[in-house]
Amino acid sequence: MTNKIKPKTDRILLAHGSGGRLTHELIRTVFMPRFSNAELDTMDDAALITAPGMTAKKLAFTTDSFVVNPLFFAGGDIGKLAVYGTVNDLAMKGARPLALSVAAIIEEGLDMATLEKVAASIALAARTAGVNVVTGDTKVVEKGKADKLFITTSAVGAVYPGANVSGANARHGDAVLINGFVGDHGIAVMAARNEFKFSGAISSDCAPLNGLVEKLLSRKHPLHVLRDPTRGGVATTLNEIAAVSGVGIILDEASIPVSRPVRAACNILGLDPLYVANEGKALVIAPASSSAAILSAMRSHRHGKNAASIGTVVKSPKGVWLKTTSGGLRPLAMLEGEQLPRIC
Amino acid sequence: MTNKIKPKTDRILLAHGSGGRLTHELIRTVFMPRFSNAELDTMDDAALITAPGMTAKKLAFTTDSFVVNPLFFAGGDIGKLAVYGTVNDLAMKGARPLALSVAAIIEEGLDMATLEKVAASIALAARTAGVNVVTGDTKVVEKGKADKLFITTSAVGAVYPGANVSGANARHGDAVLINGFVGDHGIAVMAARNEFKFSGAISSDCAPLNGLVEKLLSRKHPLHVLRDPTRGGVATTLNEIAAVSGVGIILDEASIPVSRPVRAACNILGLDPLYVANEGKALVIAPASSSAAILSAMRSHRHGKNAASIGTVVKSPKGVWLKTTSGGLRPLAMLEGEQLPRIC
Repeated sequence: MTNKIKPKTDRILLAHGSGGRLTHELIRTVFMPRFSNAELDTMDDAALITAPGMTAKKLAFTTDSFVVNPLFFAGGDIGKLAVYGTVNDLAMKGARPLALSVAAIIEEGLDMATLEKVAASIALAARTAGVNVVTGDTKVVEKGKADKLFITTSAVGAVYPGANVSGANARHGDAVLINGFVGDHGIAVMAARNEFKFSGAISSDCAPLNGLVEKLLSRKHPLHVLRDPTRGGVATTLNEIAAVSGVGIILDEASIPVSRPVRAACNILGLDPLYVANEGKALVIAPASSSAAILSAMRSHRHGKNAASIGTVVKSPKGVWLKTTSGGLRPLAMLEGEQLPRIC
Repeated sequence: MTNKIKPKTDRILLAHGSGGRLTHELIRTVFMPRFSNAELDTMDDAALITAPGMTAKKLAFTTDSFVVNPLFFAGGDIGKLAVYGTVNDLAMKGARPLALSVAAIIEEGLDMATLEKVAASIALAARTAGVNVVTGDTKVVEKGKADKLFITTSAVGAVYPGANVSGANARHGDAVLINGFVGDHGIAVMAARNEFKFSGAISSDCAPLNGLVEKLLSRKHPLHVLRDPTRGGVATTLNEIAAVSGVGIILDEASIPVSRPVRAACNILGLDPLYVANEGKALVIAPASSSAAILSAMRSHRHGKNAASIGTVVKSPKGVWLKTTSGGLRPLAMLEGEQLPRIC
């Protein structure tokens, strides 16, 4: 509990929830110094736990709050998002979900039909991902003291035998793979807010990734890092990985899969798809020598049809860099400020 | 997913968060039919999970959201409350905490100093309860879209060998014990809201109960039910137990420990202390033949000094009844409506 590290602002800004630089500063200055322990300090989205006296099988444990606005959008809703987001955080630790919890904070006056619709969506998503909701909680706050509905899901999972993935494991010579188009979720949620008119149909990529991960792990592919680029997008997530692993990552702009409508929407809105949230994407970092086999396995899975190799891990320069289509190299920093509040 | 069971109102009422009858109706009509599974259906506050291939040791898993208003009150704050509330839900399943998660939903504009104070309180409470925060999440919503700070804590615990407690295990002939005074938490929070002026110092009973439970379980006392009477108080919690166990419970009014200041405050406010929330109390139900030994063990623990035997379990009448000091028998129903919103 050091007094040396102080947050740089006296009040919480929206950008503290961006998943970008200020979120990291908040976690690093307010929470980490106080809660520090070996598991938390890995800064992965799920923690490994082992019960003393238990056999070697490791458990993964994760939690996420969802405050997405609006509650419903093309391709998903807060319930589906909460289940898959949490299942995916387990999958990114190489774990299969064993049990899910759901805690709802509800605003007084919410339509019962809305709550029922979300509950049904949670149930369907949990069945799809192959996990049960085993415990939960319900709180109600006065009208005006919350925005309709916030959901916090937590989950426990069993780590696949032999899986040893962590944001700290990226190594020089690794390839960076992704299982499909980037930016769909963020743009779908913005469209649902009517923040812009867009004729193309852009749906959230919200999907459970445990099946895809199970496929890769069961084939004993030598995976180093699995990470889902949600808030803050691919660029921010890769910055986290580069920092924790102490490496550099060079992305090849031309090879990054972005759908035509998302690219068009980003152009209009002045957004970079690399900073837009995804909810059904995994960054897979593994030795370049295995990348062809892994890509082929990913492409044969329904959530990996558009998988691509998008970059390489290098010793230096540190940080994340984009090799542009014009041949230049420009730095991709962590997301600054708040680009799309309440995207998940 | 039955269509027959429908909530009786079209909109969420504050009383849906009371922990009383409407909360139960909400859970029973909106969530249970959609999420139903053997573990959830026990309606205990924590669920047991076993990983296939794992040795017999069972894990408990629980979650709770905290929306208490104000964030700070005599004897505690939202952080301490969240940690102990979650640790206690594990303890009530006979489990020792292994790992804790913390998810914060923060209102834009919250003082950083407030957040730091709560984080420090969470850290201290976790240390006191002997558990690490191993994972977490931070979301920020726009000013006016939440009320300062909501915290959702989840935890995984290891069930003590031999422990087999559940709200469904109350049996005819059991005694109902409690580890001290009832109603302190609810009255302390109301006092902090300045909803009434009261000269006596009433502090929340907010405390971790895993040590007390470990003491009882390590001595192999034959415990049937452990349950913490939080929202809705002792009367509501006993109604849940009576319903799930299919028994009646008769409380002896004269033997229920209520401190003088809490009784005075309840008299002024027209509240029944049996419906006021506690945050450091356990209801212990066990065979009457063991109750003297259990009471003695409870009284020798710092969180059980004022332990008392307050009632008995009977075959009939079903439900919960109060044997009043004047000798009558009156029904104690589940809490109706919302008595004290946002007490936890």
